[in-house]
Amino acid sequence: MAATAQHQQPTPERFFNTVNAHQQTEAMKAAIELEIFTAIAEGNTTVPDIAKRCSASERGIRTLCDFLTVHGFLTKEGNQYSLAADSALFLNRHSPAYVGGAIEFLLTPRMREGYARLAEAVRRGGSALGDDVLEPDNSVWVNFAEAMVPLTRMASDTMAAEIRKGGEVHKVLDIAASHGMYGIAVAKHNPAAHIYALDWKNVLEVATRNAKEAGIADRHHLIPGSAFEVDYGSDYDLVLVTNFLHHFDPATCTTFMRRVYASLKPGGRAAIAEFVPNPDRVSPPVPAVFSMTMLVNTPAGDAYTLAELEEISKNAGFAKVELAPPQIGLGRLVIAYR
Amino acid sequence: MAATAQHQQPTPERFFNTVNAHQQTEAMKAAIELEIFTAIAEGNTTVPDIAKRCSASERGIRTLCDFLTVHGFLTKEGNQYSLAADSALFLNRHSPAYVGGAIEFLLTPRMREGYARLAEAVRRGGSALGDDVLEPDNSVWVNFAEAMVPLTRMASDTMAAEIRKGGEVHKVLDIAASHGMYGIAVAKHNPAAHIYALDWKNVLEVATRNAKEAGIADRHHLIPGSAFEVDYGSDYDLVLVTNFLHHFDPATCTTFMRRVYASLKPGGRAAIAEFVPNPDRVSPPVPAVFSMTMLVNTPAGDAYTLAELEEISKNAGFAKVELAPPQIGLGRLVIAYR
Repeated sequence: MAATAQHQQPTPERFFNTVNAHQQTEAMKAAIELEIFTAIAEGNTTVPDIAKRCSASERGIRTLCDFLTVHGFLTKEGNQYSLAADSALFLNRHSPAYVGGAIEFLLTPRMREGYARLAEAVRRGGSALGDDVLEPDNSVWVNFAEAMVPLTRMASDTMAAEIRKGGEVHKVLDIAASHGMYGIAVAKHNPAAHIYALDWKNVLEVATRNAKEAGIADRHHLIPGSAFEVDYGSDYDLVLVTNFLHHFDPATCTTFMRRVYASLKPGGRAAIAEFVPNPDRVSPPVPAVFSMTMLVNTPAGDAYTLAELEEISKNAGFAKVELAPPQIGLGRLVIAYR
Repeated sequence: MAATAQHQQPTPERFFNTVNAHQQTEAMKAAIELEIFTAIAEGNTTVPDIAKRCSASERGIRTLCDFLTVHGFLTKEGNQYSLAADSALFLNRHSPAYVGGAIEFLLTPRMREGYARLAEAVRRGGSALGDDVLEPDNSVWVNFAEAMVPLTRMASDTMAAEIRKGGEVHKVLDIAASHGMYGIAVAKHNPAAHIYALDWKNVLEVATRNAKEAGIADRHHLIPGSAFEVDYGSDYDLVLVTNFLHHFDPATCTTFMRRVYASLKPGGRAAIAEFVPNPDRVSPPVPAVFSMTMLVNTPAGDAYTLAELEEISKNAGFAKVELAPPQIGLGRLVIAYR
């Protein structure tokens, strides 16, 4: 994630690249909006052809495509642009793995404003925006659920396969289910499993739609409400806690995990998907920097290390905590055993 | 400038890093505002000490310092943060090479708005903001002049030394002088030289202040007005054209360079400092991506290749054009001979 190669002599280049890094955000946003990657995937490889397909100027297209080449999303040979491998898979709108829609969630005005007020968040030790993002039925979570589906397709399958290695499950609670993709993947890997998806009522409409599309609607049930208040039911083999704990401080996480513990059968598992930085908190880069997104967006959330997740889980009653080997999307899977 | 290391398997990580790149901008802005680097330079190396010095929360400081470590501005050993070499030289407010003030120019609301409307600029082939930035007495150029002084200290000295190798100069025109630092450096390297600094009247106040500070006020003269309209005078040995041509299209640059040519003695030189991308337009990264800043900010400006600068100069009458060997700050020096 370092912005430049190492230099022998001191140079302010890294500083300038970092100050100007917002240009990369805007270039990607414009490229997705103008469908540059899709245009090239369709066979438009020169500035005039891309400009025509994207209803844009040649000067603008040349400048943007060169910028995207410098940043590794395109390659350029003579006057011909091609898609880098990652761009062909993830940024062409015709690809089933297209993730361009994630921009809608990652770059909401709220997120941008939170970052614009970062100095204030650092001073006070929590979001400068208040805690409305954690309030009931906030529509931001509907946007999230809809935008993140393509990205979670691979991750949820990897996670469900890993969980299946520990034994078949029959009754599964999917907390903060969002798009429902993690629970749906578990349903696919466990043909007898029934999934109980918990989230705000408006968000569960997205999960229900996805469960229908996946053909498991008859095994997909809803628990609308707050994960801190609603009755979970009991006797679960598995509780999914995906990308949820990072919104809260450790004490709140522990209180929550006690509810999870109480809902599990003896021997049942909680599957926690999280960004998990190393103990040094500065590696690997993606989970390490995720802490700042929580500083900016929540009153007291964080990216927790494995030791912290273990402490939270054990304080909540769990007997054993393990880090599963595979990468799950950009995060990791931690299994807590009752 | 690539955001991540190469991966064997396709991954959307580069896409996410790029969408989230605005976080780097905001982190640097907050770090400069909170004086994180200065605090560490003063010997505050732990989260509690830095938090106290910066009047900020420990949670916020830990998160921001870890982010800055991931991005190479700090190093972290156990609980101790240190400054990377570049940060110690350029980001500590007590350092004479401090460049943190450049943020004031690089991140003006106008610049941010221009980038926020990048897709529109790509469609129309020029700034979505109109051309007011090129209008007389725009105060943005006073901000620029004041913010850029520390950054140009080394660059202007390197440039003046390189020019001096081609012979002593006596009468020098410094067009779009801004902070005046390039002309002032030439005055220092040529003890008999008189500098005629041309810029908007409000901007020349900054140059005059810097000429006084440098002790060359008696050899520093002012020509207030537009570089396209005002009378330059004549018989110059040297005309400085620093970071000016990129604001205009090639035809306008040629018209302007004819005026420069006419003001020079036979055998005189124009010293053009510019971002100069290679013919491929995608390397080196800094000049290559500078094209986009001109797309966003000007009606028809660009980062010109050496071949384009040569064509502009020769069309204006110059006999010979050479690229000088040294890097001048983040740009290059091109000499055109009358």
